[in-house]
Amino acid sequence: MPGIIDGLRITECAAFIACPYATMSLAQLGAEIIRIDPLAGGLDYRRWPVTATGRSLYWAGLNKGKKSVRIDLRSEEGRELALALITAPGAGGGIFATNLPASGWLDPEGLIRRRSDMIVATIVGNRDGSTALDYTINCAAGLPGITGPEGDGGPPINHVLPAWDLLTGLYLATALLAADRYRDRHGHGQRIQVALSDVAFAAVSNLGMLAELEINGRRRGRHGNHIYGAFGHDFATADGRRVMAAAVSIGQWRALVAATGIADWVESFEQASGTDLSREGDRFEARETILEWLAPWFAARTLDQVRSELDAQRACWGPYQDIEQMLAEDVRVAASSPLFEPVEHRAIGRMLTARTPLDFSAVEAVVPAGAPVLGADTDLVLSDVLGLDGSALGQLHDRGVVAGPDDA
Amino acid sequence: MPGIIDGLRITECAAFIACPYATMSLAQLGAEIIRIDPLAGGLDYRRWPVTATGRSLYWAGLNKGKKSVRIDLRSEEGRELALALITAPGAGGGIFATNLPASGWLDPEGLIRRRSDMIVATIVGNRDGSTALDYTINCAAGLPGITGPEGDGGPPINHVLPAWDLLTGLYLATALLAADRYRDRHGHGQRIQVALSDVAFAAVSNLGMLAELEINGRRRGRHGNHIYGAFGHDFATADGRRVMAAAVSIGQWRALVAATGIADWVESFEQASGTDLSREGDRFEARETILEWLAPWFAARTLDQVRSELDAQRACWGPYQDIEQMLAEDVRVAASSPLFEPVEHRAIGRMLTARTPLDFSAVEAVVPAGAPVLGADTDLVLSDVLGLDGSALGQLHDRGVVAGPDDA
Repeated sequence: MPGIIDGLRITECAAFIACPYATMSLAQLGAEIIRIDPLAGGLDYRRWPVTATGRSLYWAGLNKGKKSVRIDLRSEEGRELALALITAPGAGGGIFATNLPASGWLDPEGLIRRRSDMIVATIVGNRDGSTALDYTINCAAGLPGITGPEGDGGPPINHVLPAWDLLTGLYLATALLAADRYRDRHGHGQRIQVALSDVAFAAVSNLGMLAELEINGRRRGRHGNHIYGAFGHDFATADGRRVMAAAVSIGQWRALVAATGIADWVESFEQASGTDLSREGDRFEARETILEWLAPWFAARTLDQVRSELDAQRACWGPYQDIEQMLAEDVRVAASSPLFEPVEHRAIGRMLTARTPLDFSAVEAVVPAGAPVLGADTDLVLSDVLGLDGSALGQLHDRGVVAGPDDA
Repeated sequence: MPGIIDGLRITECAAFIACPYATMSLAQLGAEIIRIDPLAGGLDYRRWPVTATGRSLYWAGLNKGKKSVRIDLRSEEGRELALALITAPGAGGGIFATNLPASGWLDPEGLIRRRSDMIVATIVGNRDGSTALDYTINCAAGLPGITGPEGDGGPPINHVLPAWDLLTGLYLATALLAADRYRDRHGHGQRIQVALSDVAFAAVSNLGMLAELEINGRRRGRHGNHIYGAFGHDFATADGRRVMAAAVSIGQWRALVAATGIADWVESFEQASGTDLSREGDRFEARETILEWLAPWFAARTLDQVRSELDAQRACWGPYQDIEQMLAEDVRVAASSPLFEPVEHRAIGRMLTARTPLDFSAVEAVVPAGAPVLGADTDLVLSDVLGLDGSALGQLHDRGVVAGPDDA
C-alpha cells in the first residue's frame, strides 16, 4: 500500500533514538528505509529493555518497518559496499541519515562527490561536534530544577521521556522532506545538521522561558503538578486512582466548575478577592484555593464516576495510568484502536505495534511492519539496489563482508 | 533571504502550542505563515508568562516570524473574508492548519469545495474529537508514575515540558511537507488529522515501553535520576552545583572510568560479581555501586574542575542549569551562538530569539523575526493576497470587520 511519501529511499547508519526515530517515522509514511549495520549490530543493538533471549524491544520499536543490511564496516570492501548503497542512483534515493561521526569514510563531502545530489543529514550532540545525550542536555535546559514538589531547593528531578531525542528525530524528518523538496526544485542536494542541544535550547526559548528572565527578570519556580499559568492538577479518587483535571481555556474552566458544583465558591471568592477566575492567570494565582475546593469532590467519587460526571460537562481531564492499566483499560491503546495493530515481530513475538499518528485522507495508513532481524534484508537490498547476482552475493558472504539474518 | 521551503504559504487559525509550533517551525524554514485571529486575539493571547503590560511571552515565542491578520470571526462577513484568505489561489498556497473544531465554518470539506487542492490539517486532543491537553494525556501515557525518587508508590510527578504538544507540532510540520509533496505529484490536496493522544501512545510504544509488559511481563519502575538500562546519574559538586554524567555507550563508559580513576574498582567488582560493566545492562544493574564510586570524585571538585577533567577524556556529561545560569554561563545560549540572535519584539522588548535548530548547507538560516503584534499585517495581507485596495480596506475597518495592530 503506497504511503503519502511513496518513492523516497533513505539509507541510515544510526543508533539510539533521534536518527532511528526520524527514519522510522518516515517509514510509517511509506518511505523505504535501509539500515546499514555492522555485523554485530550497532551500539544500541542490545539496549534495554531486552527479551529473555537478549533481543532489544527498544531497538525493535525504533527500527520497525525498515530493511536491515549487515556489512563488515571495519573492512575496506565492506565500507565500499555501504558507500555504493548510500550513493546508489535512482529518483527519490540519495538520502542518507546518520548520528555517527561525520568524519572518515562517512564524510558528507565524500558522499556528495559520489552522488552530486546527495542529501546527507547528521545528528550531533552539540553543534561543535562534542558528545551530548538527551540526559546531559535536559539538565542544561533548566527543566529538572522546576520539576517536582512545589518550592525551590530540592534536588533536580529528571523527566523520563527522552523528549529531546524524539523532537530531534521529528525535526530531522521535517528537514529531510524540506531538502527533498528543495532538490526537486533546484536539482541539488546538501548537507543537513541538527544538534540535540540546539533543539532543546530553541524549544525552551520558543516557549517563552528565556524571555521570562530577559524581559520580566523572573525565573519560573517549581510548581509541583500544577499547570503553570492556568489551573490544572492531579486528584485522588475514592478508589485509589488519580486523575489530572485541567482548565486552561475559559470553556474548560466553566465545564469544570459546572461538573464539580463549585460555582458559589467561585463567585464568593471572586467578590472577596477582586479576582476573575475566568482569567487563566487569576486561576493560577488562586491554584491552592481551587485545589482545596475540588479535592473533596474527586475524593468522594470513583474513577468511573469522575469519568462520567466530567465527560457529561465535556470537562478536560485524564486518568493517570501505568502501562498495565493503559493496556487493560484504555480503548486508545488496544488492538481495536486505529493507531495500533498486533504484529508478529520475528524472534520477539506478537505485540501491539503503532502506526503513524498522522491520518492522511488521500492514502490509507501504512500497515505496521515488524522490526527486521539484523541482516534480514542483506541479499534482497544488495540485489535490488546494486544489482548483485547470486554468485556475487555468495562471494561476499564467503569472505565475511556481509551477513544474513541474525537468527541466533 | 529565501529559506529551504521558500514559496510555501500556510494560513492558520490556532491557539496553544502544537499547531503554532508546527507553523512557526516552518516559518523558520522560509514558509510564509499567515495567522488569522479574532479581534481580541485567540484563546492563548494572554497566556502566561506575560509582561508587565500584559503581552504574552509564550504567544510571542510561538508566533514569531508569522504575519497576523485580525478579523471579526463572529460576523458572517469576517468569516467570508477569512475563508477567502485560507482558500486564496496561488502555487504553494492552499495549506491551512488549525486546532479549532473542524466543524462549522472551518469544515475541511467546505474549504476543499472552495479550493480543490486544499491541504487542511487539524490537530485534535483525542482521535474521537474529545478534548485533551498535553497534561491530560501525559498522565495517561504512564510517565508521571515512573518519574521521581526511586521506589514505587509515591504520588505521580508531572514533567514540565509540554513534550506531546511540541512533538505533535513537529509531526504536523512533517505532515504538511509530505502532503505538499503528494500534491505536487498527484495534483490534489487532502485532509490531515493528528491527535495529541495518538502521538503520546505511539511514542511510548515506539520506545518499547508497551512491549516490556506485553513481551516481558514487566513494567518499568521508578528509578530516580538514573538512566534506565545503562549508567547515568546526577552528582553534586564541591561548589554547590550539580552535573549529569552518562555512560550509555562503551566509549562513554571508558571515558568516565578513565576520567574519574575508578578502573581498579571496576576490575575488582567485575571479578567478584561476574558482571561485565562494559555491557550497559550490567551497568544499570550495578548503578548504585557505580554511584557510590563516583560521588566522592564529583564532591571533591568544582564545576570547572569537573568540566576540565571530564572534557579531557571526552566523557559525556552536562551541567544542571536554571535559566539564569543558562543565560549567564552557557555559550550555546548567547548572542554569540549561531542558534540565537537578539531581536526587538514590538511591544515587548529585545530578547534572544532562536533560529531553527536545522542547518541546511544550501541556504543561509532565516534571520529570526520578532512576534507580530496582533493584526500588524491585516492590511498588507488583505491587499497582497486578496488584492483589496485602500478603499475596500477602509470600509472593512469602518465596519469593524477587520482591525489593525493591537498597540494598546
